[in-house]
Parts: sequence; structure tokens; C-alpha cells
Amino acid sequence: MTSPDRADFTDPVGAIARTATSCSNWGRWGADDVLGTLNFLDEAKRREGAALVRRGASFSLSQRFDTHGPQRGWRRRSNPVHTMLDTGADFALGNHPFPHGLGGADDVISMPLQCSTQWDGLGHIFDHGKAWNGRDAARVVTSEGDLVTGIEHMAPHVAGRGVLLDVGRVIGDDGELPDGFAITEEHLTATAVAHGVRAGRGDIVLVRTGQLARTRRDGWGDYAGGPAPGLSFTTADWLHGTEMAALATDTWGFEVRPNEFEHAFQPLHQIAIPHIGLLIGEMWDLDALADDCAADGVYEFWLTAAPLPITGAVGSPVNPVAVK
Amino acid sequence: MTSPDRADFTDPVGAIARTATSCSNWGRWGADDVLGTLNFLDEAKRREGAALVRRGASFSLSQRFDTHGPQRGWRRRSNPVHTMLDTGADFALGNHPFPHGLGGADDVISMPLQCSTQWDGLGHIFDHGKAWNGRDAARVVTSEGDLVTGIEHMAPHVAGRGVLLDVGRVIGDDGELPDGFAITEEHLTATAVAHGVRAGRGDIVLVRTGQLARTRRDGWGDYAGGPAPGLSFTTADWLHGTEMAALATDTWGFEVRPNEFEHAFQPLHQIAIPHIGLLIGEMWDLDALADDCAADGVYEFWLTAAPLPITGAVGSPVNPVAVK
Amino acid sequence: MTSPDRADFTDPVGAIARTATSCSNWGRWGADDVLGTLNFLDEAKRREGAALVRRGASFSLSQRFDTHGPQRGWRRRSNPVHTMLDTGADFALGNHPFPHGLGGADDVISMPLQCSTQWDGLGHIFDHGKAWNGRDAARVVTSEGDLVTGIEHMAPHVAGRGVLLDVGRVIGDDGELPDGFAITEEHLTATAVAHGVRAGRGDIVLVRTGQLARTRRDGWGDYAGGPAPGLSFTTADWLHGTEMAALATDTWGFEVRPNEFEHAFQPLHQIAIPHIGLLIGEMWDLDALADDCAADGVYEFWLTAAPLPITGAVGSPVNPVAVK
Amino acid sequence: MTSPDRADFTDPVGAIARTATSCSNWGRWGADDVLGTLNFLDEAKRREGAALVRRGASFSLSQRFDTHGPQRGWRRRSNPVHTMLDTGADFALGNHPFPHGLGGADDVISMPLQCSTQWDGLGHIFDHGKAWNGRDAARVVTSEGDLVTGIEHMAPHVAGRGVLLDVGRVIGDDGELPDGFAITEEHLTATAVAHGVRAGRGDIVLVRTGQLARTRRDGWGDYAGGPAPGLSFTTADWLHGTEMAALATDTWGFEVRPNEFEHAFQPLHQIAIPHIGLLIGEMWDLDALADDCAADGVYEFWLTAAPLPITGAVGSPVNPVAVK
Repeated sequence: MTSPDRADFTDPVGAIARTATSCSNWGRWGADDVLGTLNFLDEAKRREGAALVRRGASFSLSQRFDTHGPQRGWRRRSNPVHTMLDTGADFALGNHPFPHGLGGADDVISMPLQCSTQWDGLGHIFDHGKAWNGRDAARVVTSEGDLVTGIEHMAPHVAGRGVLLDVGRVIGDDGELPDGFAITEEHLTATAVAHGVRAGRGDIVLVRTGQLARTRRDGWGDYAGGPAPGLSFTTADWLHGTEMAALATDTWGFEVRPNEFEHAFQPLHQIAIPHIGLLIGEMWDLDALADDCAADGVYEFWLTAAPLPITGAVGSPVNPVAVK
Repeated sequence: MTSPDRADFTDPVGAIARTATSCSNWGRWGADDVLGTLNFLDEAKRREGAALVRRGASFSLSQRFDTHGPQRGWRRRSNPVHTMLDTGADFALGNHPFPHGLGGADDVISMPLQCSTQWDGLGHIFDHGKAWNGRDAARVVTSEGDLVTGIEHMAPHVAGRGVLLDVGRVIGDDGELPDGFAITEEHLTATAVAHGVRAGRGDIVLVRTGQLARTRRDGWGDYAGGPAPGLSFTTADWLHGTEMAALATDTWGFEVRPNEFEHAFQPLHQIAIPHIGLLIGEMWDLDALADDCAADGVYEFWLTAAPLPITGAVGSPVNPVAVK
Repeated sequence: MTSPDRADFTDPVGAIARTATSCSNWGRWGADDVLGTLNFLDEAKRREGAALVRRGASFSLSQRFDTHGPQRGWRRRSNPVHTMLDTGADFALGNHPFPHGLGGADDVISMPLQCSTQWDGLGHIFDHGKAWNGRDAARVVTSEGDLVTGIEHMAPHVAGRGVLLDVGRVIGDDGELPDGFAITEEHLTATAVAHGVRAGRGDIVLVRTGQLARTRRDGWGDYAGGPAPGLSFTTADWLHGTEMAALATDTWGFEVRPNEFEHAFQPLHQIAIPHIGLLIGEMWDLDALADDCAADGVYEFWLTAAPLPITGAVGSPVNPVAVK
Repeated sequence: MTSPDRADFTDPVGAIARTATSCSNWGRWGADDVLGTLNFLDEAKRREGAALVRRGASFSLSQRFDTHGPQRGWRRRSNPVHTMLDTGADFALGNHPFPHGLGGADDVISMPLQCSTQWDGLGHIFDHGKAWNGRDAARVVTSEGDLVTGIEHMAPHVAGRGVLLDVGRVIGDDGELPDGFAITEEHLTATAVAHGVRAGRGDIVLVRTGQLARTRRDGWGDYAGGPAPGLSFTTADWLHGTEMAALATDTWGFEVRPNEFEHAFQPLHQIAIPHIGLLIGEMWDLDALADDCAADGVYEFWLTAAPLPITGAVGSPVNPVAVK
């Protein structure tokens, strides 16, 4: 349960400190841990997840990566720039060095790792200079990258049971929560009950707000950093207590925006990543999966969402694939 | 079966033309097809694949993405360059704008899509100006990217039954085939028999040569484009006839290098991608999975290898995850 | 003089064809030419230019290169993304490998070559598939770059006499021409007369509209591609007849926007680059220089604006330096 | 003069400390200085330099920027990757959206700012955590870039009198100094005497070793970071005492490699940049200019070498142009 003093939104520093203490997983998996809550995703959970493949239908939960994405330049985050090294046009015209009619095309991309559908790695957020497991952020994430908890360590792990909590559909109007709507533990529990599903230890939990459907209809607007529905700061205990392996949403920043505290910025990140060690996904496209779940009433599935093992990265683009 | 005239390695143009005719899948899935042999990977195959998750053990089949990769600059292919937009060092020193002790790190990557563990998309290779399904390559892959068969179309599909054919272990010495070794259908069949496994319609077939293990020990050398074990041109019929969904190897270029024809360059690509419509994976790291398969004698598994849906891309980095 | 039929803005194809004929420099400097009007900038002109250094005062005519630039993503043009490979923060904390107290910082940039203050190379624009000097654009600019007239060929040449025509100050209100204002030869001549300066053979001519000053005050708005003051299509004869070496403006696209023809896009580019062989500069910051010229009444100076010799580039960022 | 104890190459820390004290320019131009020795390059010097334009002949001193450059990946330094956004091939085939026969090509580059011919900015090197003018490096160069002495501040300044000291030609064999050759003040003075030129206050001094000519003939080898001729650590007093504005060489790292101290790395950088505030150029191509100087016996000229004003950059690619 969320204690009342956490709901006092006048003192972010105090609330963060108290919540960090109650939610801390520091040391839980030893001093050398680099996986955080992915430790909850064990082989038994994978067996349970694989058993959920009943029809064999698969769904990509990724937005497309291109210059039409949501980024506006905040903190130098741009949309991906994809360019060609060779083209079919050139090969058709003979502008190439290859024999026997061979032609080909290659390409290049330049992108922030947080530009679109992504995982936040454990080195993405710090609390008062402390990274996951209590480490000194100044030694963990340098200009060479995350030297300790780089996302490459997660490469084989993110495959297991996925659970969709379509809060937009259960609590919102026409499947969408309004911007600024703070999703509480009560909303999440009500949604799970409505779906007849349970999100627990080792699960990868997907929370749909409906905001992405809205931007698909109305344009990006301030999707990147602006007002959005999202998790209330008060859900920290729930994030911690369920012992979930990971959580992802269809919004830019996973927690409600504007943040509930005045003069605050993403306070729930400050708990979830460095203290809980939670793997957080953002900007996932949950709409096609959500439609299918609404149609068949089944909100659990096999989910693989493998980050690219970019050495030292604090995030990774990802194409999560759910199979029902 | 491979007909004798295909094995006449003096006439690449003629051999390619004959093989293209016998192996063509053009029109098989309609004029608008953008998936090629991924069409073989259906829901039934996914159910079959998911049933292979017995222990719940998961394996990443990806090399790490960093500047220590194999690229040497050929056709402007470089290794990935990953840089930080923010660091823990800066946050520890107070060099940041955030309140209440929040700190964070972001990062950026610039890389060729074919730089490391990857899928070749259907727009990656052409035969005499023709792309997959007989389309005019000049209209399909322009400097804007692959306008028709971009890899984004494959986003939800690449999850199914994986089969490992560890030819290095069965045919080679100490688990490795020498550079220049041409793997024939006979070697592949013998390997499957030795493993007690069958690779067929809709499967994602992984062929391990052992070359990556060698480079791990001896250094990259000419891994990128140089001599390598790999599939013989004569395996085209096997690639086509098995109706596999995809094939990946642990080498730079999937086929044997030097190529079997004189004055040739990657002739099997010229059949496999534009004519068969085969999804090809390269530079996969199959070693940990292969060790496990050798230990438990089980060479089939659930495999998810979801490309990033980069709009118009002719390839994608990928972190394939196998679960047994 | 501009003939009346050129001023008939209902037929862009016809007007472009007629103007191309009258303004063509094809073959003027031989079939192998890669310099276009830079051929007019000879050693005598450099001696004349150097003699204009009277005070020794120098001015940069470049905008700053950063994410706060004008680009909005049109045709994948983004603002520059500059990231650090090493930082002082890391060195102060000891996060580095160097001995005896040495520290250092390195950096990386990713940018379109047309993102900010720039030269358009001769391969930047084509007319009906013809590049500068009548060459086949399909063979000149491939996905490997400009194989013939890459901007590297201009590396030693762009240093000579500069002339500022501050049309904004002479013709406009408060130093600025309104968006959509078409600058004609008459305006240019009147400005030169008002300044007491003459722009002729071999000169680098700078035309200030004042639009950049406006965006500095009011924000970028649609600076990139939107309405702007600029040269009228009817100035083609003047561009050709003066035998200038190069021309640069303080706007995104050098010619008036919206373009004077209906359903047209940058028709003067289609004459100036492929037919005249004119080196065109865009997004230059002429304001500090213009203030100085207004103060001392001297509108001519030594100007060096050396493109980076990027092999095969069709443009280059540049920091032009004027010295009076 | 170089004191004997500086030539004691067993104690880099001590030698650096002593030399830093004797060569320091901290505070010389006030606490807010962002220009270092560029302060010596004043208007009088520019007048003097411009008077050296006698023939009007111009020379680019830049290597070409492309994937064939010298970088090998050390500290994530790669060669530039230049790709096309549009091509002539596509326009010739009609693969574009433009009216009336207009076609065009755009391009993109991704490169380290220290990849080829470049200036090192004042934020490039620190001594025991101190940047130029005694500032705390941890506050000056963060992951956002150089917040104080970014190279954009130098944008209008680097135009003046250039002097070539062709030490390779005067001291070396066949115009080249061998790798590992330490150029002392005596060599520099003898070269100036042989040339009949004087390098002094406010000059931009170019020191040619001949190494680039050698790599042009023999291949890059270890040009990037390997053995090279270059300035001896003992030239620190000369760099300081001449009051030159800037110095550039044709080598990767300006000082002799291997460095003269054991277990040292670029100790002269540690004096020249943070203590002297010297602008240092590296990888310049001085060969064509040197040939001309040898032919006409004139080793002084007008030189413009304007860095791109990349906000917060600690270096910049540059195309220096000399005019005689």
C-alpha cells in the first residue's frame, strides 16, 4: 500500500528519500549485480510464458524508427536519420563494382538510443549520484558509457511472460486516459481484475494509457516530454512489491506528466531505476496487441524484447514481439 | 538435388541464371508480397516452436555492438560509434539541470545496419536490376531507402522454431571448419542426422561454421570479407526446397569465401535474396547455444530475432534470443 | 537585362529552358571542368582582394552549428548533433587511462552538410537529369557521392574579393526585406550604387536580405523552406552576366520563397548551379559584417570561405571569414 | 632557452610542472579569456599578413575527409562517414518529388572532430584537471561540450600571417624527418635561418616534418598515434616565448612519438594547450605549399584557417587556405 506521506506532493526530496528506503533492492542480488529486477525472470517464468502461446499470433510492439518520430531536440534527442550507402537505382544504372549482375544496397543509421521504442538501461537514471545497487554514478557511467551495468548484460534475459494492463480501455474514455492522468495502484488493480489477469513476480508488465493512439490521430504535439498520462509516484511500492521483471508503457516517460510534485522532474524514475533496479520501457506501441486482447479476452502472452547489446549503453531501441 | 551443371564453376552468369529459374519464388505469395520466405513461418509453426521451451534457458545470439567489431571500412562499413549525451560523472559533479537529486544519462549511436549481428532485408541484394519478387530495383531501393520491402514489414514475424546445424562440430576439426570450406547439402544433411534434428518448412535455420570462435581466439583478421567457411553455391536448391523461413550463420557473408566461381562475388546471395526471398542472418554468435545443444543433444528451440523496424531499411541489427 | 518572357510566371518549364540556354556556361572551361564560376576567381582577383585589407578587422559569417539551428527534418535534414567522446568531468574524476596528470576531451559530430551556413557544391542541383557542364547526373552523383564535381575540388580556390550588397538595408524597412520579397536586378543595382561598390567578374557576392536578423529576433519559424525574401528568378541573367565567382545570402534558399512560378520549387537553383556553374552559399550570417560596412561605408573586403574537402560531397559547412 | 632539467626525461610529472610554471599564460588576457594565444593575432598582424599576397596563388592545406583517412578506432576515432540523402541516379530515374525537371542531391556526414586536418580547441587537453586559464576542467568540458572555451569563440579570428618552417626539407633526408625524430628549438631556428624567415608574435607557424609525404607513399601505417617526427618537449619555451598565435604540423600529434619521457603520453600537449593557451593544428597537408615555398624561396603568406563554429566543440575540422 501507498502510505499517506508519500502522497504529500510538496516535498519531492523527502518523498523520494522515504520511498527509496522502502523500495530499495540494493544488495538483493549481491554487490556485483548488473540485472536488477531481471533477476526475477527465471527459467520457470519462461516455461510459464511459453505455455501462453496458444494460437501462434505474433505482434510487434515497436513504433517505426524514422525521421517522423516524436523527438524535438530536447537534450539533443533527435529522430533517427537513416541513409543509404548503396541503392537499387545505382545498381540498375551500373554505378557499382560488382560482377555477374550482382547488385546490392547497404545503409547506415544515426540515432539516440532513447529516440523511439526503447528500454532504459540500469545506468539511465541516478539518485543523488547513486546508480543501481548503490554504486557511484560518477564511476559507472562515464563518457565511455556504462562501464558496469551496460545494457549488453541484459542481452539474453528479456524473454518471458508478458501481461497487458490496458488502463486506457478500462479506466479511460474511448480507450484513452487524458494527459496529466496519474495512474494509481487502485487503477492498475482494477484493470487487472477487469482483464482477469494477474501481474506478478518475474512478469514483463505493459501498461497502456492510450496516449500513443491519440498522437497517431492528432499528431505528436508534445508527446516528447509534454503532458501525458502515466504512473503516479505513489505506484513505487507496487512496482517494487509485485517483483515484476520489467514495465513498459506507450508514453514518452512512463510516469504522469506534469509530475505530481511541483518543481519536479520524473521522480518515479529516480526510485524505479536506481533503487528498484527496474527495467523500464517507453514509447512502446501497444495498440494492435491491446485490440487483440480485447477481442479474445486474453491479456497474457509470451514476450521477447531483447535489447541490442551495445556495449556500455544506458538504453536500447527494441522491437518487442508478443506471441499469443 | 544439385544438378551437375550448377557445379560447373566457370560460368557464374549462366549458373546464376539457371539456378534463379529453378529456385524462384517470384509471385508465390502474390505481386504485393513484402515478406518472402517469412510467409512460411505461420502460426502453426509458432505453436510448434513454443512447445520447444522445456527448461526455460535463454541464449543471446548477438555479438556486442561496439568499436571492437570486425568492420574495416569496406564500402563505408564501420564499426558502431556509441557516444554519451550525459554521464554519471557530470551528474555527480552537478553539471546538469535537474531538481531533487535526479541524474541521468543518455546516449547516441551511429552505425551501418550491416555492421554486426544482423538480418539482410529483402532490398539488400539484386540480380541484374531485379529485387525480390521481380521488382525493378531502381524503383524499390532509392536513396530514400527501400520503399517497398523495407525491413519494417518484418517487425512482427521473426519468432518461431529455430534449428541449429553445427556443421563446424560435426564435420570440422575441434568444432571449426577451415576458411574456404564450402558447405554442401550433403554436409548439412549429415549434420542434421548427427544431431537428430530436421530443418524444414517455416524454420529459422542456424548454420554454425566455428569461424567466429576462431576469430575470438585469433583476432578478426579478414573476418569482414575475407576467406571464410560458408554455404556452397550448390546449396541454393536446398535453401529453396526446404522452404525454411530464414537462415543465419556465424560468418560475415553466409556463403563460402573465396567464392567458388572465379571472378565472382557472393553469387549465392544473388539467388537467395532476390529469387528465393530468403531472410539471411550474418555474424551471429552461435557458440554458447551450440555448447548447450552439444551438452543436452537438443538442437531445436524457440527463437525470436526481431529486426528493428527502421523504415526503409535493407538490414537491421538484431539480438536473436533462443529459448530451450 | 531580363527579357519579358522570362517574367511570365505561368510556364516554369519554358522559362527555365529559355533561361538555361541564355545563361549556359557549359563547355566554357572545357569538358573536364569541376569548378564552374570559381574559374573567374583568378590570381589577379586575389591580389585585388588582398589589397582591401586596410584595418585588419575580421568577421565570421557563420551561424553556430548546434541543435538550436533552423532545421525541422525536411528531406531528413536535421540540426547537427555534437557529442563528446571524453570530458573534463571524467578526467577530473580520474575516469581515464592517461599518465602524469594528462587529461583530454574529444568529440564527434553528425550533421547534414546543408544543415547551416554552407556552400552548395556543383553536384547539388540538376536540370532534367543534367548536372553542371551538361553531364549525366545519374553518373555524377551516385550513392557514393559526387564522383566528378565533389566539393573537394574547390578546396584551395574560395579566397578572393568579397562584396556585400545589403539589399535589406537599402531597399527594406529597418534593414529587412519582408518574406516573399523578390529581389530583382534593379534592386541589386540600386544597392550597389547606394554602397558605392561594384560586383563583377570573379567576385564573391554577398546579398543580405535581413531575414536572419528577423529570425534571431522572432525565432526560426519557417526559416527552413518557408517564405523568405530572396533573388527573383529574373536575376538569372545578372548572375550569369556579372561573371561573379560565387554568391551567398542570409536565407535558407537564396531565391525568393514562395517561388514566383506557381507549382514551382527553387527554379533559380535549376539555372544557377547546373547551367551557370555558380557556387551558392546559404544561411550565412552577414549581420555583423553589414553593421561594420554601414559604419565605415566600405562594402568590399577580403573573403575566405573554404569548404571542407569532403570527398564527393555536394555541399559543405563553412565558416567564411571576411577581413577589412 | 630550454633549461637542462627539462631535458631530464626520467621525471615527466616534475618536468611538466616546472615547464607549466615557466610557460604559463594564465591570466594574461584576463579571467574570462577564451582565445589564448589567438590574442596575439591582432589587426596589425592581419595587415602584415595580407601584404604578403603577391602572386595571388592559393593552396589548401587540408587532407581530404573520407573513409580512406588515417584513423584506426583509437578512443573511438573513426574516419568520416559521408552518405547521400538524394542522388543524381534517383533524380534521373524520376525517384523524387520535384516539379519542372528539378533534381538535387543532399548529403550527411558523421565524423570525429579530430579525425583529419583539424584544430585542437582550448578544451581539448587538461593538466591535472585544469583547463586553459586555470579553470576547473570538470566544469568546462562536460558531456554537453566545452561550456566556456568552445571553438565557436575562435570563429572570426584565425586569419593572419602564416610562416612555414620546413624542417623536413632543411634537416631531414629527401625532405623527410624519420619517425621518432625530436625537433628542437635549434632545428627550428636553423630552418628559419635557412628559409630567411622569422616566426614571431601573432604568427601562425606551420612545421613540416615530411611524415605525411611518407605515408602518402607508403600507406598510413601507424600514422594515427604511432611513431612520428615532431616537436620535442623541450620546445615548450619556444612555443611560449615566440608569442605565436598558433602552430600546426603535418603529423597526427604535433609532438615527437614515441614521447621522450618513458611512460608518457603527449606531455607537450599538457603544456601547450592548458598553460600556453596555444591553438594547435594537426594532420595538415603542407606538401604543395612547401614545394611552392622551396621554388620561390618565400616562406611567409596570408593564411586563413577558420574552424567551424560548432558550439562547445573542443576541436574542428578545417580547410586552411594559404595565399602567396
